[in-house]
Amino acid sequence: MNTMQADNLVPKNSSSCAMNPLNLEEFKRQGYMVIDFIANYYQNIEKHPVLSQVEPGYLKELLPKSAPFSPEPIETILHDIQNHIIPGITHWQSPHYFGYFPSSGSIAGFLGEMLGTGFNVVGFNWMASPAATELEGIVMEWLGEMLTLPKSFLFAGNGGGVLQGTTCEAILCTLVAARDQMLSQVGKDNIGKLVVYGSNQTHSALQKAAQVAGILKKNFRAIETTESTSFALSPDSLRSAICSDIEAGLVPLFLCATIGTTATTAVDPLRPLCDVANRYGLWVHVDAAYAGSACICPEFQHFLDGVEGAHSFSLNAHKWFFTTLDCCCLWLKDPKALTKSLATNPEFIMNNHASNSEQVVEYKDWQIALSRRFRSMKLWLVLRSYGVDNLRSFLRSHVKMAQIFEELVVSDKRFQVVVPRNFAMVCFRALPLAMGNKVYENGMGNKVYENGNKVYENGMGNNVYENGMAQKITDDQHDQERSNQLNQELLKSINASGHVYMTHAVVGGLYIIRFAVGATLTEDRHVFTAWKVVQEHLDAIIGI
Amino acid sequence: MNTMQADNLVPKNSSSCAMNPLNLEEFKRQGYMVIDFIANYYQNIEKHPVLSQVEPGYLKELLPKSAPFSPEPIETILHDIQNHIIPGITHWQSPHYFGYFPSSGSIAGFLGEMLGTGFNVVGFNWMASPAATELEGIVMEWLGEMLTLPKSFLFAGNGGGVLQGTTCEAILCTLVAARDQMLSQVGKDNIGKLVVYGSNQTHSALQKAAQVAGILKKNFRAIETTESTSFALSPDSLRSAICSDIEAGLVPLFLCATIGTTATTAVDPLRPLCDVANRYGLWVHVDAAYAGSACICPEFQHFLDGVEGAHSFSLNAHKWFFTTLDCCCLWLKDPKALTKSLATNPEFIMNNHASNSEQVVEYKDWQIALSRRFRSMKLWLVLRSYGVDNLRSFLRSHVKMAQIFEELVVSDKRFQVVVPRNFAMVCFRALPLAMGNKVYENGMGNKVYENGNKVYENGMGNNVYENGMAQKITDDQHDQERSNQLNQELLKSINASGHVYMTHAVVGGLYIIRFAVGATLTEDRHVFTAWKVVQEHLDAIIGI
Repeated sequence: MNTMQADNLVPKNSSSCAMNPLNLEEFKRQGYMVIDFIANYYQNIEKHPVLSQVEPGYLKELLPKSAPFSPEPIETILHDIQNHIIPGITHWQSPHYFGYFPSSGSIAGFLGEMLGTGFNVVGFNWMASPAATELEGIVMEWLGEMLTLPKSFLFAGNGGGVLQGTTCEAILCTLVAARDQMLSQVGKDNIGKLVVYGSNQTHSALQKAAQVAGILKKNFRAIETTESTSFALSPDSLRSAICSDIEAGLVPLFLCATIGTTATTAVDPLRPLCDVANRYGLWVHVDAAYAGSACICPEFQHFLDGVEGAHSFSLNAHKWFFTTLDCCCLWLKDPKALTKSLATNPEFIMNNHASNSEQVVEYKDWQIALSRRFRSMKLWLVLRSYGVDNLRSFLRSHVKMAQIFEELVVSDKRFQVVVPRNFAMVCFRALPLAMGNKVYENGMGNKVYENGNKVYENGMGNNVYENGMAQKITDDQHDQERSNQLNQELLKSINASGHVYMTHAVVGGLYIIRFAVGATLTEDRHVFTAWKVVQEHLDAIIGI
Repeated sequence: MNTMQADNLVPKNSSSCAMNPLNLEEFKRQGYMVIDFIANYYQNIEKHPVLSQVEPGYLKELLPKSAPFSPEPIETILHDIQNHIIPGITHWQSPHYFGYFPSSGSIAGFLGEMLGTGFNVVGFNWMASPAATELEGIVMEWLGEMLTLPKSFLFAGNGGGVLQGTTCEAILCTLVAARDQMLSQVGKDNIGKLVVYGSNQTHSALQKAAQVAGILKKNFRAIETTESTSFALSPDSLRSAICSDIEAGLVPLFLCATIGTTATTAVDPLRPLCDVANRYGLWVHVDAAYAGSACICPEFQHFLDGVEGAHSFSLNAHKWFFTTLDCCCLWLKDPKALTKSLATNPEFIMNNHASNSEQVVEYKDWQIALSRRFRSMKLWLVLRSYGVDNLRSFLRSHVKMAQIFEELVVSDKRFQVVVPRNFAMVCFRALPLAMGNKVYENGMGNKVYENGNKVYENGMGNNVYENGMAQKITDDQHDQERSNQLNQELLKSINASGHVYMTHAVVGGLYIIRFAVGATLTEDRHVFTAWKVVQEHLDAIIGI
């Protein structure tokens, strides 16, 4: 690596850094060097185990006990990053990364981050950098239209969009707005009566937001979902939870519905849920953190049917939209409800012509923090550099790769696709039958095991599996424990290999493996490799 | 500009971007281009008016109504940034920027941001990227030691540090921790009794955090400060506010003390404040957002005297520590109080060896959001690239420049330094006498005016000013209104010129101009220029 070879050229105690910290020659020299370093990282990314294999505390052993007194040259620092940091990274940008949800990087997202960082403005209000505020408003209109969000969520329809850091912040902000709106009706002393609803598949962001906003833990409802709805929230369950809370003298406040749950990408049915929620006066937030991006493609937009009944909608452009962390897009129908709760008007930033004129959006009042990064820059670069057409193609290519993987799973009868695939993630498991006599030592025994292997090896013996449990996921208790143990072991083995990285979920008591396509560098061949790894590790576990 | 000239070389409808969004050749080509673009921006930054002069809505007129269907080349995008975005930027990186507090960029901070963005890991828990968690723990120990924070705030003393986005988040997190700790003692239904304390100089972050955390507005105390304490919070005032709340049946909860207030960089006396607060069981958070950085220099560390009595301490490395936005450093004595309030343990990220072993820090439970950027990278690069010695020198050079400006203000008797300068910010105003007969048309009249000018022009006539109001800042009501009007007009005129940018504050009813040194590119000559601009604009206003 070039940057490494330069090590010897600059003495360790070089005081070259004592010059101005924005010296332009150094800025360019070191800037190019880091561009090369990162390009090199991407080029060689497949050489690293995807899941970092270091042990807790590893870095403390490698770094000095305190900050250096004298400057160190960039060459030394990059050398340490190569040798000490990279081994401790779980490589979210690796084409072999299929864990959690993607964190899809891109050139445009990266450059946007560079430009925003280069300007390094603190755009809390319009005047602090008009372009930051205005560009944000504009790209949020662009993206809202790409998603076919109802006009009521756009500035053009008296709603509006804002960039937050993460969904956690977006949910907290909207929950606080809903809370204060409700308390102004029912009395400020009734915070202890407010109830927040999600399903047991809703992201933990809702629970955290509720905790922060002062909602009592006993008033947090994680409504049960089942396989019968593919783990989507049932409007009937919501209604009955709301009704029993009302009977108990509580005040239903807030529903978080999800388009693409974390565990299985389940889609909560927006229209009937909003109908129920609106009947009882709840604020509905739609969390489309992962799957929202797909809705720029016409074929996915039906998942948003009924969103017009919601109050707010968010997606994370930093997940599956090529915009580096962090970049959560939040739209609201009634931004005033938000600013009423979050506005502060300190003299030092308020008394200026633009703010006084009320002609401008003051985004500081749309979020938790005062200070704001220039996040719209990266989203703007992504939209312009790729264009709507390519962005759709990129997302579709991920969906296509997930379909390929799904077909591979289906074709091997030792495995099962656990829930319908909605987007670019496949939830699957190895069936306990695959473990043969190890599993069924006091059940069907060796015969099944031997048949099982034959099925896999020569395509014979289908009956064993067809009579097995491939069509249902709710095994009896005994089977389920075996299945969970098997899949836990399988995933651990796969990830320890470093060849690919996948993560798990537990739904309906069942431990499943999630295969989420979306890392930008992933191609078809990586999907085939991943499947081969899965099969090989199962082979090893069952002792083929 | 090179990047601009390339415009014609790449056809607008080039589909070169349809390739993989992380194509390495393009990554390097475009990466270098953006490095050049930003270097060029810094090189020419003095050519732009510091405060953007655009009008609300300007950008909407310049950009298309919707996102492009087809990709656009980087050259076109950079061209638009140059022509449409830069004019809308208030140039926080300009050497002529003296507004608010600095947002001091640096090569190291920028490169750290690039590297973190390049890896683009989502380090919510240890396993999601061990290096991100471990490096954060390490640099927070380094920086804590540089500040001579008591060991009880460091991991080595069972406390610990975490990087948050902004002070708003840091205060919200600690307030929520304090709230829940108190509610577990006094009963969860008593949230309406909890009282939060700051001074009328405390940053609005406290008010916002209190609003979000569900503290009633009527229970938020912004305790009056006066000139007699240079606008620092008086322990006696705190005690009396606490006592009267207790008498009223309320529950004192939280005090936010400030090292370096936003308006005037006042320093609240930590030791006596903590004594009072601890006697009544309050959580004390110390907000050293701006001035904390200075405490890496021995000569400023006395401002931290008594911090051992506080529960948490934060500073913004993105203000005056060369680490680009956002990077708030928070240390706590009892991280468990924080994680008790903020922890969520969803199956999908928790069930792994490291988390289960409890050997590792899980930073997701130390903050509002789940997802976490690799912020420690930039702080690490800043510490290593410059070293403790240089970092102190940089900060001292800013303090020295503020001293120069202070001396210039003092040397012109038409002006006054309003409060003692503690760090690198000077608070000053033009005295109403300077306006001569315009101000004193029915007072002392022309004679004073003429003397006034002579003082300025030839160094004579001192008596007029010495007998004037240079020694007190609390003018009578009539004078104060005149003074405020004059200084408001003066600042507006200065900023409209685009030559420099300063902002204002109002303390004790007095409108003052803040001159905050800290933009990385600022040198002595920029300070002299700034002072010349101030004088010229006053000359113009008073009609010389």
